[in-house]
Amino acid sequence: MIDIDRVRDDTPGTRDLVHLNNAGCALPPASVLETTVDYLRAEAARGGYETQRERAGQLAATYDSLAALIGARPAEIALADNATRAWDMVFYGLRLGPGDRILTCRSEYGSNAIAYLQQAARTGVEVRVIGDDDSGQIDLRELERELARPGVRLVSMTHIPTQGGLINPAAAVGALASAAGVPFLLDACQSVGQLDLDVAELKCDVLTGTGRKYLRGPRGTGFLYVRESAMELFEPAVLDNGSAVWTSPTTYEMSKDARRYETWEKNYAAVAGLGAAADYALSLGTAAIEARVLALGELLRRTLAGIDRVRVHDLGGSRCGIVSFTVDGLAPEDVKSALAAERVNVSVSRSTSSQWDLPARGLTGVVRASAHYYNTEQEIAYAGSLVERLVADNGPHDPRD
Amino acid sequence: MIDIDRVRDDTPGTRDLVHLNNAGCALPPASVLETTVDYLRAEAARGGYETQRERAGQLAATYDSLAALIGARPAEIALADNATRAWDMVFYGLRLGPGDRILTCRSEYGSNAIAYLQQAARTGVEVRVIGDDDSGQIDLRELERELARPGVRLVSMTHIPTQGGLINPAAAVGALASAAGVPFLLDACQSVGQLDLDVAELKCDVLTGTGRKYLRGPRGTGFLYVRESAMELFEPAVLDNGSAVWTSPTTYEMSKDARRYETWEKNYAAVAGLGAAADYALSLGTAAIEARVLALGELLRRTLAGIDRVRVHDLGGSRCGIVSFTVDGLAPEDVKSALAAERVNVSVSRSTSSQWDLPARGLTGVVRASAHYYNTEQEIAYAGSLVERLVADNGPHDPRD
Repeated sequence: MIDIDRVRDDTPGTRDLVHLNNAGCALPPASVLETTVDYLRAEAARGGYETQRERAGQLAATYDSLAALIGARPAEIALADNATRAWDMVFYGLRLGPGDRILTCRSEYGSNAIAYLQQAARTGVEVRVIGDDDSGQIDLRELERELARPGVRLVSMTHIPTQGGLINPAAAVGALASAAGVPFLLDACQSVGQLDLDVAELKCDVLTGTGRKYLRGPRGTGFLYVRESAMELFEPAVLDNGSAVWTSPTTYEMSKDARRYETWEKNYAAVAGLGAAADYALSLGTAAIEARVLALGELLRRTLAGIDRVRVHDLGGSRCGIVSFTVDGLAPEDVKSALAAERVNVSVSRSTSSQWDLPARGLTGVVRASAHYYNTEQEIAYAGSLVERLVADNGPHDPRD
Repeated sequence: MIDIDRVRDDTPGTRDLVHLNNAGCALPPASVLETTVDYLRAEAARGGYETQRERAGQLAATYDSLAALIGARPAEIALADNATRAWDMVFYGLRLGPGDRILTCRSEYGSNAIAYLQQAARTGVEVRVIGDDDSGQIDLRELERELARPGVRLVSMTHIPTQGGLINPAAAVGALASAAGVPFLLDACQSVGQLDLDVAELKCDVLTGTGRKYLRGPRGTGFLYVRESAMELFEPAVLDNGSAVWTSPTTYEMSKDARRYETWEKNYAAVAGLGAAADYALSLGTAAIEARVLALGELLRRTLAGIDRVRVHDLGGSRCGIVSFTVDGLAPEDVKSALAAERVNVSVSRSTSSQWDLPARGLTGVVRASAHYYNTEQEIAYAGSLVERLVADNGPHDPRD
């Protein structure tokens, strides 16, 4: 069980805010902030390279902590400046051509989709978007059929989409991909720090995560897991003299481990902060985190669904801490602004980040409220009461009309 | 004229250190540190996305300041997590093939060279390393001859190499490339913040810079300039939903300006700090900075060259604040360690970052001492005296022998 009073004491931002924008960027614990600031101050006092050398142990520990978080080995972890960069390092390294196929899902994230479209235009690779089943998650039967057809080079899927509460059945997808001998790239941007993840169970060859969302780390941090046995399948999209050694005028050698997917220069203060974030999650336990986030998500979903003229749009057989909804007659941006005026942070997801999903459901945007374990039942009730008042104030029977 | 007392008061790290590792990572002014820390604290108190919105003006100003620094327009600037990422965004976006040629120089930086070799193996592009002239800088006559041959797709050169005091004649290279109608990519990692740069004068189509070196910004920051008229020549190597908008299930639109070379997610605290660094340089004036850095570099070079058994290895007709040297009978690492024990920071450049240069001169590594404007003549004399003592203590006539 998570001690809610303690985690809120650890989180200065909870004093003045109801932060339900954890799927955007969560509030960091004080340990993350102070670790980052302390590192920056050391650099200013001692020099950047000198601090990096002096704190090599602290920086190496970030790999250990991230690995522990997802059941990987430290040598399978690469750091990146964000999850997109991490994902790009593998995806854009693939040599694709006509006849090759990539399988993905309708709830796929916009950045990934744009990358598929860019590479399709460049290389002729075909991007096949698997449909949803009746629950709204990826249709595993269709996936299995498509995997049986020739030319599939990659299954690439977002675990939890940006635009709703759906948890895609990643382990089942991983099992099918593995059985078909096709590499599986899992974008776990929204699930790292929210769910209890284990790369062995997920059967993914590559997993990408970000620091700033449910992991509560600094902005401008991300990481990549590449299974040791899959490393030769994925040439890094780009190389530099951190990921490779220039051994002679015409030769270089890539790092033997996942460092081959990094760039040498990093924001090391943020790396230290990312380690503190992973440590904080590990100290609470990822199973306990998942249990509380999912329970609060469900409470938030029920609270909102119980309000007149509010529609909750979450799909899937299994749902997370993210709740997507609309209010009849109000633009999502107006709902967000009204809540922000009361110091409740939510965000808006638009069809530009989910063209294979929201438009097909007749939606151009949704309000996204996303709970973390440090949120409370009272905060959720308060947010619900604000939405209720907003509905009343803007309804067809508005008494001020 | 730069007020040295004031800039040292502004630079906490100068109190306890003689920092001659500015070509590695310079000491930031307090304004850079405190701007970065203040931004991080705001994020923790208000939320990351919320702070980004509230401080949009501050973040936009970073583009303005970087543009002002090099004579560009803000719409021609893209931010990146480091200079390598910025460079990669253009270089790896080129569609190259057999028959295509890239012209570069012997002093080229290791990361760039590894990228050439990776792309040569992938695409068949030929990498032609132009020789040096008698002074040790890029041979402009040979460059002109090679530009006249068919298939040249890019001239790509490092302005100031990592391993020495050379300033390559970038404006002359730009003029030749421009006359030949070949795009010119200038890696200005060591020259931004050190020299008075003007992209019009340099005639470069692309320029990349880093925050942490002579610009005195945070680690994990870099930027890219792409001339507006050259933007269609360089497709971004990768795209995401910050650099492009996903407009329909099968289409996207790239940003019209240089933002197309960015990723959406960034370390915004570092972006704010980078802006403060550019503002600090602008407040002193880049011409005044260049004059003092070059003068201190020359003083350091003379001081070291005057010591028995010390060899200075800087090449070129025009030299900067970086001084490369060796001490007979001592490994560069040992010189660095001995100086570090007296709180003098220098670094070591090895042949692995300069395989086309150092080995051809019979060198495997050099000590690199790099002065910034906040260094003093006294510090340089002190560093020189330490090297002198080191020579005496380790010489063939060591009295302890």
